[in-house]
Amino acid sequence: MRIKVGIVGVSGYGGGEALRLCATHPAFELVYVGGEGSVGQRLVERYPGLGKIGALTIEKWEPANLPKLDVLFASLPTGQSKEALARVPASVKVVDIGGDHRYVEGWAYGLADVWPDEIKGASRVANPGCFPAATLAALAPLLAEKLIEPHNIIIDAKTGVSGAGRGGGETTMGYGEVNEDLSPYGLLKHVHMPEITKTIDRISGAKSEGLVFTPHLVPMTRGILATIYAKGKVTTERCMEIARAFYAERPFVRVTDKPPHTKWATGSNLVFVSYACDPARNLVIAMGACDNLGKGAAGQAVQNANIITGHAETLGLEGATLWP
Amino acid sequence: MRIKVGIVGVSGYGGGEALRLCATHPAFELVYVGGEGSVGQRLVERYPGLGKIGALTIEKWEPANLPKLDVLFASLPTGQSKEALARVPASVKVVDIGGDHRYVEGWAYGLADVWPDEIKGASRVANPGCFPAATLAALAPLLAEKLIEPHNIIIDAKTGVSGAGRGGGETTMGYGEVNEDLSPYGLLKHVHMPEITKTIDRISGAKSEGLVFTPHLVPMTRGILATIYAKGKVTTERCMEIARAFYAERPFVRVTDKPPHTKWATGSNLVFVSYACDPARNLVIAMGACDNLGKGAAGQAVQNANIITGHAETLGLEGATLWP
Amino acid sequence: MRIKVGIVGVSGYGGGEALRLCATHPAFELVYVGGEGSVGQRLVERYPGLGKIGALTIEKWEPANLPKLDVLFASLPTGQSKEALARVPASVKVVDIGGDHRYVEGWAYGLADVWPDEIKGASRVANPGCFPAATLAALAPLLAEKLIEPHNIIIDAKTGVSGAGRGGGETTMGYGEVNEDLSPYGLLKHVHMPEITKTIDRISGAKSEGLVFTPHLVPMTRGILATIYAKGKVTTERCMEIARAFYAERPFVRVTDKPPHTKWATGSNLVFVSYACDPARNLVIAMGACDNLGKGAAGQAVQNANIITGHAETLGLEGATLWP
Amino acid sequence: MRIKVGIVGVSGYGGGEALRLCATHPAFELVYVGGEGSVGQRLVERYPGLGKIGALTIEKWEPANLPKLDVLFASLPTGQSKEALARVPASVKVVDIGGDHRYVEGWAYGLADVWPDEIKGASRVANPGCFPAATLAALAPLLAEKLIEPHNIIIDAKTGVSGAGRGGGETTMGYGEVNEDLSPYGLLKHVHMPEITKTIDRISGAKSEGLVFTPHLVPMTRGILATIYAKGKVTTERCMEIARAFYAERPFVRVTDKPPHTKWATGSNLVFVSYACDPARNLVIAMGACDNLGKGAAGQAVQNANIITGHAETLGLEGATLWP
Repeated sequence: MRIKVGIVGVSGYGGGEALRLCATHPAFELVYVGGEGSVGQRLVERYPGLGKIGALTIEKWEPANLPKLDVLFASLPTGQSKEALARVPASVKVVDIGGDHRYVEGWAYGLADVWPDEIKGASRVANPGCFPAATLAALAPLLAEKLIEPHNIIIDAKTGVSGAGRGGGETTMGYGEVNEDLSPYGLLKHVHMPEITKTIDRISGAKSEGLVFTPHLVPMTRGILATIYAKGKVTTERCMEIARAFYAERPFVRVTDKPPHTKWATGSNLVFVSYACDPARNLVIAMGACDNLGKGAAGQAVQNANIITGHAETLGLEGATLWP
Repeated sequence: MRIKVGIVGVSGYGGGEALRLCATHPAFELVYVGGEGSVGQRLVERYPGLGKIGALTIEKWEPANLPKLDVLFASLPTGQSKEALARVPASVKVVDIGGDHRYVEGWAYGLADVWPDEIKGASRVANPGCFPAATLAALAPLLAEKLIEPHNIIIDAKTGVSGAGRGGGETTMGYGEVNEDLSPYGLLKHVHMPEITKTIDRISGAKSEGLVFTPHLVPMTRGILATIYAKGKVTTERCMEIARAFYAERPFVRVTDKPPHTKWATGSNLVFVSYACDPARNLVIAMGACDNLGKGAAGQAVQNANIITGHAETLGLEGATLWP
Repeated sequence: MRIKVGIVGVSGYGGGEALRLCATHPAFELVYVGGEGSVGQRLVERYPGLGKIGALTIEKWEPANLPKLDVLFASLPTGQSKEALARVPASVKVVDIGGDHRYVEGWAYGLADVWPDEIKGASRVANPGCFPAATLAALAPLLAEKLIEPHNIIIDAKTGVSGAGRGGGETTMGYGEVNEDLSPYGLLKHVHMPEITKTIDRISGAKSEGLVFTPHLVPMTRGILATIYAKGKVTTERCMEIARAFYAERPFVRVTDKPPHTKWATGSNLVFVSYACDPARNLVIAMGACDNLGKGAAGQAVQNANIITGHAETLGLEGATLWP
Repeated sequence: MRIKVGIVGVSGYGGGEALRLCATHPAFELVYVGGEGSVGQRLVERYPGLGKIGALTIEKWEPANLPKLDVLFASLPTGQSKEALARVPASVKVVDIGGDHRYVEGWAYGLADVWPDEIKGASRVANPGCFPAATLAALAPLLAEKLIEPHNIIIDAKTGVSGAGRGGGETTMGYGEVNEDLSPYGLLKHVHMPEITKTIDRISGAKSEGLVFTPHLVPMTRGILATIYAKGKVTTERCMEIARAFYAERPFVRVTDKPPHTKWATGSNLVFVSYACDPARNLVIAMGACDNLGKGAAGQAVQNANIITGHAETLGLEGATLWP
């Protein structure tokens, strides 16, 4: 029997990617799509490349009036989901792709490649942000094995335009301005910092200090890369080995000898991690690259939905990277 | 029982896309990948985003030494497949993504959305070129119904960089040169012209004259668009209606009211067609847009392989467009 | 003595490019910048790369309150300049980069490479649109020499995003949507058609019929290309020869043997034209490529301002193309 | 009297940009262009947008056979200029845009915004690399004033494709591979590291340790950004103030409150620097952005040539940024 699935926020990039993944998911049946802006529109008008589910009509988003659902994916603008999702019936499991429920009581933090077991029983999952997803995939093995210090970690992160999104506010997204441009933004105050800090603390078992996080906007549509500078007297080889062991059972994380490319992950739920160390200088460079809409949003959300509905976590996510 | 499949030419864009599609095809089992340049390399080294089939090793391409195969996809440079494919055992069905066997005796022309029936029984299929695929999808219904004259058709075509490919020869493909640039090339002598002419003749039942074909290189990776100017006293509505009827049973062709966008098709086997007419001026503008590596190459090739092996033509091709 | 110059509409792309050109123009002194939206802002806040003139403050645009000016460049949204520019004192010469005064009585049509002489005495010049600029540069010599028929000319035009601009209305300009996409728009009804038709008529001395104009949006910031299909029994060589003679005294038009690239013109006032003919088929393909903000807007505007103020037309426009 | 100038290496990006700048330089007369590959070709065939100097013919590069020159710009591949430039007559001043003479005895290091005085008397100038140019502009004021420690500086640098160039070797530059991709390269071993270290040492007067330099390739043609993490108990405001004082007489360096954008500098010799500090954490983030072919190569080379020939350093470099 197929799982009945709904998506709210289908006109954003994250919701749109959830739509694409649900369209071919063998165990999911999409029965509801909700929104604010485009109510009454058929999906295929917004997404001309959709198959059968393109016939669905966008309904007015009202948590009290949902059809019978097993799982709801929410991809709402920051600040708009707390009150609304609280009114979703308890019988409906929720994966929140947005940022409002990360490290909120009653919500499992859906870092599926690190803590899959605790997601299993959850009925409310807060999907990690795109920057945390790329960053933590690279850091988790080293923190867990105490190969690096949890303090004073510097994350120099770079995102394509679909990741910086509309909520960023500090940067315009017009083609003429973004194309052939590169810049840092949100210095020392990006909204993703607390999420990253809390997760570092939890994995390392320490109260970390001094996290630095600098996002950059890159002229490309998809892709996110975190280049991370940490302190540790460890070799490149040891980091690779530890990471390979840590992720041995995790199908979506790939540890690579070469520095990762974001394009290796485009359209997939993969995340690539690699390391370069100089123990003489107490230096570890950890790198994580993924598709900000895949592992950084809807891909991980579907993985989480698979886990909480008792399916193989890879179901519907086997598609290889689109290349070139 | 799964179909045993091989691909030769996996380091090119067309072969790479065939790889991606075979990786998740439910009825195909990829058992052989051949090439010239990267023999001995594991696939995953070239394509880090591949799943299980990434473990395959690229073997030296030698048609006499193939393993037991049901279907071979060939994606070889122009001029390199005639002799070699002639030596592939008759028991192996061949879909040639390259251009050497189009309108060659003994080879079915794989325009799968127009003549699916005659492909069915074939064991040798010549896949259409990317420009013909976009062009003919738009023209076929009008020619078949004699709504336009087959003569003096002007095709102004635009392709992304992966379509102009290495065989083009006249244009360099370096990022610094191609980015933020646009230009026509191959004026009045492009290699795809005879293929288009022959197909127009066959659909229309006439000996057409005066075809004009002008390709342009556009700074994007994937996507191909044909804007076609033909003569006919017919309304836009009638063209739409005729095209919708013509393609009623064809899952990959979408007739749209709005002018098509190449991005509607990225990563899929879809082709979008639309029309704008001015009967007072005897003018029909027909438009066709697709992914040059999808419907324009590997997507159509997999569709053809589905047809000749007795599967539903959509099998393994249900993936929705990657957007944005 | 330097010419006192003002620009209204500095926050748009056309006004911004006028600013860049005036910044280093040896005979122009920029003394006024006006706008609606950013009144009070210093120019350098919007354009951090400006030199000395960056210190100017954007003033509220009010034609009755202008400082003493010799020339005013206007780059206002369509529909907003007719009433306002009528109130500019007669002592101020005006070059309207916008579209409201093309073929309006009392305004010279500033196609500077075709009719420089009649611009000379004008005090009101309507600058040609970007599509007309690229198109007419290629067509003018052939029409003037009657090498092609003025009827049934088909213009397949392609523009970068800064050319389709905000006035286009039919297409969104967000990076995620535009990047890696290509599509036609404004089919059979684009606003530039009457301007092109009137100019064709004037050059050819005939009342032309059946013009077809199809613009396309291309994922690049600058650049415009017109690929034009016309009827004429003339050789490629003859077209080249005639064009070279026609433009012998015109420093900004280059007739090239190879099909033109938009990138050859980036940042300059150049326009490149070329031809490919098949007299046996009565076919002439004419091509014109330029920077939509250069020859297609502000470059030509400065050329026109040079002409009406008695300077060499090349003054301040000698900068070579930015490449790559 | 105009300075007679030659350029060797005109087919590369750096040499091409030197060409563009010399084309309109009011005091330079380009009389010689040399190369290896395209001998006998007229410049305009490679650079269709060039003006008068396009008539020059590329001559076989042979230092013993130069015409009478005042200044020679050399932009040769790494490793090819040491022997050759040693044979240039002493009467010809040389600015080496390539990397072979940085910190070589007898060659001034041309960091023109930091040490203009010592360049003045030189007849051999080694132009800084593009990464050093962006990095050192941001660091110099802080190092000079000892606001930051010279040790353990982390430089996370990002470059457009024209900067990573052909010499990089580790990354391919094909459009299909580079577009929509982002990746680090040359980890812990990039060729620019010694140059940066030596300059840090010289400015700070200390022997620095532990420099980390991580370049990234970004899908854009021009632009380079260095995001630098250093240690110092200083406020953002103090860094800004110090930098503004340090560069008070330097026309090409702009200290900005907002994080810099590479696009602010496109086509110009400008470099933008900014700072964000957290003294409580002993953290300084310094940022530098420029055009890798401007301040990062040919722009700075022309500035150096101005200085050694006794001209104003801004001569011929006044052009404002190309935007958008």
